[in-house]
Amino acid sequence: MLKALLFDVFGTCVDWRTSVAGEAAALGLPGAAVADAWRARYQPQLETVRSGEREWVVLDILHREALDDVLAELGLDLPPEQRDELTLAWHRLDPWPDTVPGLTRLKERFVIAPCSNGHIAQSVNLARYAGLPWDAILGAEIARAYKTDPRVYEASVAALGLVPGEVMMVAAHNNDLQAAAACGLRTAFFPRPREGDVHADEGVDVEVADLESLADAL
Amino acid sequence: MLKALLFDVFGTCVDWRTSVAGEAAALGLPGAAVADAWRARYQPQLETVRSGEREWVVLDILHREALDDVLAELGLDLPPEQRDELTLAWHRLDPWPDTVPGLTRLKERFVIAPCSNGHIAQSVNLARYAGLPWDAILGAEIARAYKTDPRVYEASVAALGLVPGEVMMVAAHNNDLQAAAACGLRTAFFPRPREGDVHADEGVDVEVADLESLADAL
Repeated sequence: MLKALLFDVFGTCVDWRTSVAGEAAALGLPGAAVADAWRARYQPQLETVRSGEREWVVLDILHREALDDVLAELGLDLPPEQRDELTLAWHRLDPWPDTVPGLTRLKERFVIAPCSNGHIAQSVNLARYAGLPWDAILGAEIARAYKTDPRVYEASVAALGLVPGEVMMVAAHNNDLQAAAACGLRTAFFPRPREGDVHADEGVDVEVADLESLADAL
Repeated sequence: MLKALLFDVFGTCVDWRTSVAGEAAALGLPGAAVADAWRARYQPQLETVRSGEREWVVLDILHREALDDVLAELGLDLPPEQRDELTLAWHRLDPWPDTVPGLTRLKERFVIAPCSNGHIAQSVNLARYAGLPWDAILGAEIARAYKTDPRVYEASVAALGLVPGEVMMVAAHNNDLQAAAACGLRTAFFPRPREGDVHADEGVDVEVADLESLADAL
């Protein structure tokens, strides 16, 4: 029986691109270009941790390092304290319109928690900013690993005292769902604007339009 | 500046005695005697982990072992599956009347989280049962240690990305507050019926009547 839902957050629950671009633009930077170049560095950075080349560190540190590279690449300047502050834009991301009502309905029947690459402090700040009503903060930090490392899904399921078949991973990214399914979790997909995947890959258990329709479906 | 509040849970936020006694009585056992004998085994059990004699295990395992001892001591019998079910009474404890309104008000201004010896699954189930509006579940499991081991307070503060002086430990037990203060946390005390301590020890930063008056005071 399904007891808990784990959620990807960046892209799936919140619109990182618009929010980060807005904070960058407020500092006089070309917002969309900064946001996309910043996010483009994300997977290569995570891969240095997944491959064992680098020890796990919280996402704030990776984001801060990547920002220096992005600004250099785009030929932009920003004082260090504004770089620190802009890094915290990733703690203040707006939810998609269906996110809070969908999560609120799903929480009535299931335990809900992020299984994100964001660390606990980032996830707490983001949840308070965006009104995400999580029951607990799970994901990368409790495993000291980054998705799609199976330890992240496994540690999150174990922390809930459940077995993988009692838990569903929810994401707008098929690679996240494939990794969760390989650990025995059930999976649900819906698309988000500009997140790449338009449809679920074969083998995904549930495909819906958004978080409100996931609440309808379950 | 104070940014987050960490809470003891058993006794401080919830009335474990009445709730556990009620579930035991519903199984035909002498409820109050079982609850008190069960809780009396708690600190000696934790001490086996704190001393290093035993590896950290979740509280459900300790509670289940202690229940066997309690029933043997009191000359009571209960089938194994009912013992398993009664152990989960510790996931279903009623809050004191001021707990939910107090936490709800405090959450408006501060990050709030349990820093309990309960594990994540127990804390999630309890929060859902009692309506405790935590921002995150911290405490024993993320440190794999039991209070008053300093690692529990230190890991909880670190998970929030804060320094100890930005965090206040809230408890109805002076020994919990002394251990937190030794780690640099600020401290707040209020008494609870039959929890032993009637007043704060010297050095406690804030002494109030209950959680609602803590919300008034902060």
